[in-house]
Amino acid sequence: MPELDVDLARRLTPGCHEVLHLNHAGASLLPQPVLDAVTGHLRREATMGGYEAADAALDAREAVYDSVARLLGCGRDEVALTDSATRGWTTLVASLPLRPGERVITTRAEYGSNAIGLLQLQRRAGCEIVLVDDDEHGQVDLDALAVALDHPQVGFVSLTHVPTQSGLVNPAAEVGRLCREAEALFVLDACQSVGQLPLDVRELGCHVLTGTGRKFLRGPRGTGFVYVDRGIVEHLEPPMLDVLAATWVTPDRYEVRPDARRFEHWEHDVAARLGLGAAVDHALSWGLDAIAERTAALAAGLRERLAGIPGVTVRDRGARLGAIATFTVDGVGADEVVARLRAQRTNVSASKATSSQLDLPHRGLSEVVRASVHYVTIDEELDRFAEQVAVLART
Amino acid sequence: MPELDVDLARRLTPGCHEVLHLNHAGASLLPQPVLDAVTGHLRREATMGGYEAADAALDAREAVYDSVARLLGCGRDEVALTDSATRGWTTLVASLPLRPGERVITTRAEYGSNAIGLLQLQRRAGCEIVLVDDDEHGQVDLDALAVALDHPQVGFVSLTHVPTQSGLVNPAAEVGRLCREAEALFVLDACQSVGQLPLDVRELGCHVLTGTGRKFLRGPRGTGFVYVDRGIVEHLEPPMLDVLAATWVTPDRYEVRPDARRFEHWEHDVAARLGLGAAVDHALSWGLDAIAERTAALAAGLRERLAGIPGVTVRDRGARLGAIATFTVDGVGADEVVARLRAQRTNVSASKATSSQLDLPHRGLSEVVRASVHYVTIDEELDRFAEQVAVLART
Repeated sequence: MPELDVDLARRLTPGCHEVLHLNHAGASLLPQPVLDAVTGHLRREATMGGYEAADAALDAREAVYDSVARLLGCGRDEVALTDSATRGWTTLVASLPLRPGERVITTRAEYGSNAIGLLQLQRRAGCEIVLVDDDEHGQVDLDALAVALDHPQVGFVSLTHVPTQSGLVNPAAEVGRLCREAEALFVLDACQSVGQLPLDVRELGCHVLTGTGRKFLRGPRGTGFVYVDRGIVEHLEPPMLDVLAATWVTPDRYEVRPDARRFEHWEHDVAARLGLGAAVDHALSWGLDAIAERTAALAAGLRERLAGIPGVTVRDRGARLGAIATFTVDGVGADEVVARLRAQRTNVSASKATSSQLDLPHRGLSEVVRASVHYVTIDEELDRFAEQVAVLART
Repeated sequence: MPELDVDLARRLTPGCHEVLHLNHAGASLLPQPVLDAVTGHLRREATMGGYEAADAALDAREAVYDSVARLLGCGRDEVALTDSATRGWTTLVASLPLRPGERVITTRAEYGSNAIGLLQLQRRAGCEIVLVDDDEHGQVDLDALAVALDHPQVGFVSLTHVPTQSGLVNPAAEVGRLCREAEALFVLDACQSVGQLPLDVRELGCHVLTGTGRKFLRGPRGTGFVYVDRGIVEHLEPPMLDVLAATWVTPDRYEVRPDARRFEHWEHDVAARLGLGAAVDHALSWGLDAIAERTAALAAGLRERLAGIPGVTVRDRGARLGAIATFTVDGVGADEVVARLRAQRTNVSASKATSSQLDLPHRGLSEVVRASVHYVTIDEELDRFAEQVAVLART
């Protein structure tokens, strides 16, 4: 594997020269090839017509499935493309067979949208939601999970691989192993891990994996994807079908398509989807191992710098940490930190309890500031950022 | 109202100089201001960051709701923005309260995705689907609808305003009046009418209206919207909530937001949505009355030309016809017509029975060729098109 050429990666990223971007966990900076893929198709739509441009791009559109399949180590028939990770997650979870009283297992890292979905499912399907606590490192407690799985009726296990509000990387492959042993379905939200970490659905042992384009994959907004194990896809009926997901064969009969695209709708933003493909190819060209190694090292350096600033507390926990660093500043709210940094063209996010009710309040926090690096981040930026935060913490 | 300046409209439409586009019912040609709105925001995302560009565009994003509300004559709180008309339709219909045995009334114009949705609903919710036939003109039979509505348990009435496979404009306001009298919910699919005809939800009397961006509105692909009557919105729980549609207030409780945005998801293609707003503003700037008048006249002229070609049969029926003209060519399949015209840079679509099982087969047809005009279409193009079809029909 070639060394990751950071200079080249930055030259291919127009935003690197405009902002100090530590919000890759929110939405990363589009690489030029991704921007070109999207705007190029939009221009073709304007000059050829929308359907005609889509027909002309048929091979490129199909290649997006191959790219995502390569990224995840799955078959192209196991990939559905969506307009967001949440769309994929909510659609798949609503498709899983679930009987009243069945147990759905979740963890403290669960993302807000998923958690709301589980509560809705509990009310509608009458399932029982079981929360598995964290271990002493702050990741999902694997022993407690094994106990929770030792139950005759487990509907599925839901795990957020990398939470939105912490640097934690949950041990997804170990969770997958326990699920396989218990013959339980495993739904993995990889929204914050895809593009940051190498993912292989066979190694992870998940039956469903959802991801987004805009975060560490550096794709366009309004894009996402789902992996669905081909061993289960035919047993899942999407809650809302259309003419792509199913064929209307007679006035009173339809046939659902056999592959994962049963979870798609026909109409979609073709340009954005081509951008997603370009983003996946771009990530694969650098190599996910190299990206994971570099981003973990950068984030560790960021945490170290932040920890050295009086009045700043780093809030990350976990046996393994990734590209997200979270912290609080004494006496300065997260929104104010974000706003004051933004005024200096420095981008970070605030993570709130409304996205993480099972985690932040449990740790005595209502919010944190989230700074997230990527492989285009350089040490000089981290130094500059630490200086900006130090000034903030002093005033 | 100023006269519609066709020359200006064409100068603002790059595609007019590249193709003979009679596929506005598929996806129209983007006006330059729409293309600029989308690509401009994509460039800002690339240089500022995706979240940061969205924050900077907050006013413009909110203005899209005002634009759609102006277009439909409703309140901005009654508008949800979606990634397609089908997304809006399936989400809303899945949210309607429906008891087993309740009657759902549909018509022959029903679009494939909706029809599949109704069949799925029948199987899941145990409702009864009642098909109201056409009258002698080919539009929904209002007397038969009144009879069908005379039933103690009507869940809702579903009407496709302008079908995808015919020039018909269904008498939506009359259907709305009958629904109001019967106190039945009225769901109007305006996918092919919005941007072509003036729409006012109070005059139409609908409780739900769904539309798409890419067709007669001339917006980007991957955009759509829903109107939901504020009198019913709080009684509808979307099938799949997320952190925008609901707030996660405590670990085991969420609150659904009070307005129509409960049917949205947080993540979306911001650039495409700004393009939708630009498209709505563009349509409003010409005036929907002027657009409707011009497109109906052009389509009538198109039908007249086609009817004069030996071997060509115009297939439109209806007391009122709009911007879509459909026809068949003796001995030449619809796909072949489309392909041969495409080779001459002329764009039309094929409409198949799989999208219209209640209509085309009922009329003894398995497919038609669909040619659709818009206000940028000129007579010279219709002449050229008729010549191309005449050559096709002879060979």
